[in-house]
Amino acid sequence: MTQLADTDRTAPAAAETAAAARPTPRLASPVSAVGPDAADVTVDVAALGEQLLGRWAQARRESRALMADPAFHRIPELGMHEHRERTLEQLRQLAVTGSVLRAFPERLGGANDNGSNIASFEELLLGDPSMQIKAGVQWGLFGSAVLHLGTERHDDLLKPIMSMEMPGAFAMTETGHGSDVSAVGTTATYDAETDEWVIHTPFRAAWKDYLGNAAKHGRAAVIFAQLITRGVNHGVHAFYAPIRDENGAFLPGVGGEDDGLKGGLNGIDNGRLHFTNLRVPRTNLLNRYGDVDENGVYTSPIASPGRRFFTMLGTLVQGRVSLDGACVVASKLALTIGIRYGAERRQFTAESSDEVVLLDYQRHQRRLLPHLATTYAMSFAHEVFLDKFDQVFSGADDTDESRQDLETLAAALKPLSTWNALDIIQEAREACGGQGFLAENRLVQLRADLDVYATFEGDNTVLLQLVAKRLLTDYSKKFAKADAGALAAYVADQVGDAAMHRSGLRRLAQSVADFGSTARSVGYVRGTAAQRQLLTDRVETMVAELAGRLRGASRLSKADAATLFNRHQNELIETARAHGELLQWEAFTDALDHVEDAGTKQVLTWLRDLFGLTLIEKNLAWYLIHGRLSAHRAQAITDYIDGRLLPRLRPHAVALTEAFLLEPAHIRAEIATGVEHERQEEARSYYADLAASGLAPIDEKDLVAGKKARR
Amino acid sequence: MTQLADTDRTAPAAAETAAAARPTPRLASPVSAVGPDAADVTVDVAALGEQLLGRWAQARRESRALMADPAFHRIPELGMHEHRERTLEQLRQLAVTGSVLRAFPERLGGANDNGSNIASFEELLLGDPSMQIKAGVQWGLFGSAVLHLGTERHDDLLKPIMSMEMPGAFAMTETGHGSDVSAVGTTATYDAETDEWVIHTPFRAAWKDYLGNAAKHGRAAVIFAQLITRGVNHGVHAFYAPIRDENGAFLPGVGGEDDGLKGGLNGIDNGRLHFTNLRVPRTNLLNRYGDVDENGVYTSPIASPGRRFFTMLGTLVQGRVSLDGACVVASKLALTIGIRYGAERRQFTAESSDEVVLLDYQRHQRRLLPHLATTYAMSFAHEVFLDKFDQVFSGADDTDESRQDLETLAAALKPLSTWNALDIIQEAREACGGQGFLAENRLVQLRADLDVYATFEGDNTVLLQLVAKRLLTDYSKKFAKADAGALAAYVADQVGDAAMHRSGLRRLAQSVADFGSTARSVGYVRGTAAQRQLLTDRVETMVAELAGRLRGASRLSKADAATLFNRHQNELIETARAHGELLQWEAFTDALDHVEDAGTKQVLTWLRDLFGLTLIEKNLAWYLIHGRLSAHRAQAITDYIDGRLLPRLRPHAVALTEAFLLEPAHIRAEIATGVEHERQEEARSYYADLAASGLAPIDEKDLVAGKKARR
Repeated sequence: MTQLADTDRTAPAAAETAAAARPTPRLASPVSAVGPDAADVTVDVAALGEQLLGRWAQARRESRALMADPAFHRIPELGMHEHRERTLEQLRQLAVTGSVLRAFPERLGGANDNGSNIASFEELLLGDPSMQIKAGVQWGLFGSAVLHLGTERHDDLLKPIMSMEMPGAFAMTETGHGSDVSAVGTTATYDAETDEWVIHTPFRAAWKDYLGNAAKHGRAAVIFAQLITRGVNHGVHAFYAPIRDENGAFLPGVGGEDDGLKGGLNGIDNGRLHFTNLRVPRTNLLNRYGDVDENGVYTSPIASPGRRFFTMLGTLVQGRVSLDGACVVASKLALTIGIRYGAERRQFTAESSDEVVLLDYQRHQRRLLPHLATTYAMSFAHEVFLDKFDQVFSGADDTDESRQDLETLAAALKPLSTWNALDIIQEAREACGGQGFLAENRLVQLRADLDVYATFEGDNTVLLQLVAKRLLTDYSKKFAKADAGALAAYVADQVGDAAMHRSGLRRLAQSVADFGSTARSVGYVRGTAAQRQLLTDRVETMVAELAGRLRGASRLSKADAATLFNRHQNELIETARAHGELLQWEAFTDALDHVEDAGTKQVLTWLRDLFGLTLIEKNLAWYLIHGRLSAHRAQAITDYIDGRLLPRLRPHAVALTEAFLLEPAHIRAEIATGVEHERQEEARSYYADLAASGLAPIDEKDLVAGKKARR
Repeated sequence: MTQLADTDRTAPAAAETAAAARPTPRLASPVSAVGPDAADVTVDVAALGEQLLGRWAQARRESRALMADPAFHRIPELGMHEHRERTLEQLRQLAVTGSVLRAFPERLGGANDNGSNIASFEELLLGDPSMQIKAGVQWGLFGSAVLHLGTERHDDLLKPIMSMEMPGAFAMTETGHGSDVSAVGTTATYDAETDEWVIHTPFRAAWKDYLGNAAKHGRAAVIFAQLITRGVNHGVHAFYAPIRDENGAFLPGVGGEDDGLKGGLNGIDNGRLHFTNLRVPRTNLLNRYGDVDENGVYTSPIASPGRRFFTMLGTLVQGRVSLDGACVVASKLALTIGIRYGAERRQFTAESSDEVVLLDYQRHQRRLLPHLATTYAMSFAHEVFLDKFDQVFSGADDTDESRQDLETLAAALKPLSTWNALDIIQEAREACGGQGFLAENRLVQLRADLDVYATFEGDNTVLLQLVAKRLLTDYSKKFAKADAGALAAYVADQVGDAAMHRSGLRRLAQSVADFGSTARSVGYVRGTAAQRQLLTDRVETMVAELAGRLRGASRLSKADAATLFNRHQNELIETARAHGELLQWEAFTDALDHVEDAGTKQVLTWLRDLFGLTLIEKNLAWYLIHGRLSAHRAQAITDYIDGRLLPRLRPHAVALTEAFLLEPAHIRAEIATGVEHERQEEARSYYADLAASGLAPIDEKDLVAGKKARR
């Protein structure tokens, strides 16, 4: 750690950043907690709020207006069964408003507007995450499968799905198979004699599991099963099947169980289904990408089973888009509560004139402000993601390549945002102490509901490995057409580079250049270009290193190749994570260009710096080991965060949460209503009177010092 | 990262470690996932289990036997009100068994055995954490306060407390004051005319809050209030007061509210209390450390109010001991479930002969095995802690100094174990995927219940600052008697050291020495002495650096000094954490000396190495910046963990959880009963038949590669 004097040397350099907005910097006091410039700028909350709402601001506003209605609010005390019924009723109400049906085609009364549909859907979390996810099951998975995998012959099925007359389950996952959909055990065998499919569960691990709507409300299901006809297995296809009668009893051939109480999302009736030679008409095959005629002959517009499978699963990406967005909304909500409380909560002592609130403590800033920066990064990255999604699903840019890019983006961002949201909510909860543990302040239930986001719609660790795969593929493509000479040159380059690192020469050179003031070294890493370079270089180097290590895999046996990959699985995942974080950083940085107000731009730039430098700090050992940062520069990053960025951002923390534009009806946390401030004022007035009376209680500091009780 | 060839060079050196146990090491295959030595040793589960049970094994066994009774098990589906009533009933049953009364004096029917009381108490978590914490409120806080702060004149109060005839609240915390007990707002003013205390809540923030038993069951309370007599405030004292009549109605002068639903522990009726001139007899003052006679004259056996306050609060330490121990039990339970499932769960694919289970994946090992190492470290550290506690509370070693040491130990370990437990449970839950989210598998409810452990009985960040304070005090004592010359020499030392770091000379020298095989550099950090040196050096250096930075504080104004401290608050907390982790590591290392079986000792040594090296890896940037590790050595640590330690420990993972000796009646998670293994076998047999029939579903890899469907 550099000493205080060093840190102060950053002041002139730090002032530079803000030069445009503030031509005459004041000098910092040596122990001033707040930088010289933080107080001179203000955040234009309304404008920033509008920017955060993004392209689909109108849909978000409408959805939020709906979510202000208590009919859509969670009642914490409800037991599981009552909660399930309330959530079902909420879905019926949502169906009436039509807000959740925007993605359906116009011919069915929808708006064929995928972007606004997802934006609107994400905001439902403010009412109750259970309602949101149950809506996602009904319209985003079950209904969407009928729409995207079926053809117009299935239009009649869609109307009652849209209206909630026909609640249904999306029966893909099996107890024995989470992520490997191509290997589901359920079979659908064509019986030409009756022109029917025979859907069957061959063993216990092939039961469909964790399905929303399956335990109770679902009357139909889209079932993913191996399509078998004329003795050939054509791989996984989707079939529509009624599963319950009007009284809620299973139809013949269908059985199931309730998954029971869960860690959260208990408004959804997750359950298991199994089938014993369940028969459905041949036309119940959702036949867009594969069909069977009455003779049992299979045809498909997509010749390659691989591409066919990929295309069918492609519709699932909207689940990942909306989970990513829901995590942004949840993080905004948690930080609005946590930061508001931190900015009001004060530990009164008898006669101290101490005006310090929790958020004035460095540690409290360290706990919450980097999470605030991450939330902004997530929000801007989600906007990029949603835009890409809309382009593909609206058909504006619907190519194989753009679909693959979209899948990769989803696989990179969904893991980061779901894990981030859990960390953010938990930190907010702990930062609110005992208050944070009370259901009335919402944080614990929000965390409980979002817990499963990390493992559903694609387990995070599995998704990140898909990203790493893609990064490695792209990397190898660079060399696909290169001649031997170019590849050799590249390898030589790498070796040379490694030798440089190993001897410490490169690091030494940087150390010498660094041997100046902290100001210069911080100035170096503080800038946008330097952050980009450090973050990008890390991703590129990690990919190149991985590629180098895995290069020999093709020469190994299948088992040895698997072992080799497994030995680097941790690196694969970390590489993908670094890639995703770079995407978030780039999105945040791009967003800065669209900020007009100079003060807002300054504060947001500090916040982006906090995001970027926190990422670099988190991986500091990597930068040091690879000679990308000298020890001196590395230390300066932590000092700059603690000594400069946090104090500068502190005065704007509340405004930065106000820009989330959440209203009291969305927040609904007792401690974020201003009641804490009122309590503080009442106590302050009591102590003022008491000081006059001479009956002030004894100050802890005096007690510890062993001083006598004052009279 | 070093390349494969480098990693392989560690093989001979790695074999060295195990030399004593296994004289002839086999050579490792280049891509073998498991080291050459892991399979050659076995863990003596019974002996290790006995060692883990520790000094109070008997009490733990008895308590676990009790917890095998379904009467003490949580029923997940119960609503808050039913759960509260069930928990109350469980406490009545516990009172009958007497197991929870071991700490009470023999004259009252107890055993005056503090160590076995806490050990027994910790295991209650296996039934239901709510029951454990409610028992802690009744006997550990409410009853213990009457016992330790009262005198024999209060013996009559204790009998009904012990038997649960008189459930009570421990009314210390106020809405406006979490950690700063000396500043509570509630007052108790002596009225000599009636010989009574008048207990009063002067403002809303002074309401007592979050009190177990306060919302419903409590009929009495120990109230902490400012003792005022004859116009003098003598600071905080404790008063016994009835609060509800036999029908559960508040007595005159008492009011309150229910805290309602919480994030967990909903078997406890937490609530708020406030007092409006509530009158209790003068003798209701718990008068061990301060008394008032009928004339209102205050006397105390402890002259210093500071020491008096400290002594009164000292009894609270047993809460922290038992939370630390409860977190060990919870972590053991979570890993027993998560590791068992990971060792059985397999992703079957149609025709692959793949026998890989989740725990064979490197990432899965990375997720769970370091947590297993931490759990062992926590368990051994807790044993040291509990022993220290018993020595103080039994009177065997009850001095001011040993009490202060105990307080510091509590403040260092409780934050680490409570945070660790949350991380461990969450990782286990995510590692179990969707199964982990079901209440029937217990992980989500366990995490929800333990969440608040991080902020009650002393907020973790506040406790860690107390530790840092103590470290700084001890450090400054070293120089209290030193003459100016010695201090100057010390400062020069520090400066010289800093210059060395800055120029990179020291690091460079180490780099040159390192320029050999990875084996040698890993060999260096792998040993016990090197781990101790690295961990200890970090704590000492951090303390010295902090002391250096805060040295000027005494010359500053009070406000500026506070600002200076605040600028280093994050470092203060990180220093305390490093200290606590070192304590855990030392306890683990000491425990190795008590392992007799050679195979067990080998495996436990690997596990301790994993703990130590994971700590060093977590703080790798610090070691690099401070020139304690070269880049090459730093990288070798990660390679050694991933390439050697994890594969070596993998085959022993299940045995290491079996040594926790938890029985099915304690585990009660469906996925940890072997059902997963049964499902796998059934699916395996199905696929074997299918392969013969030629109807195997299509393999995903073939699909992605675009191959034709096989027939």
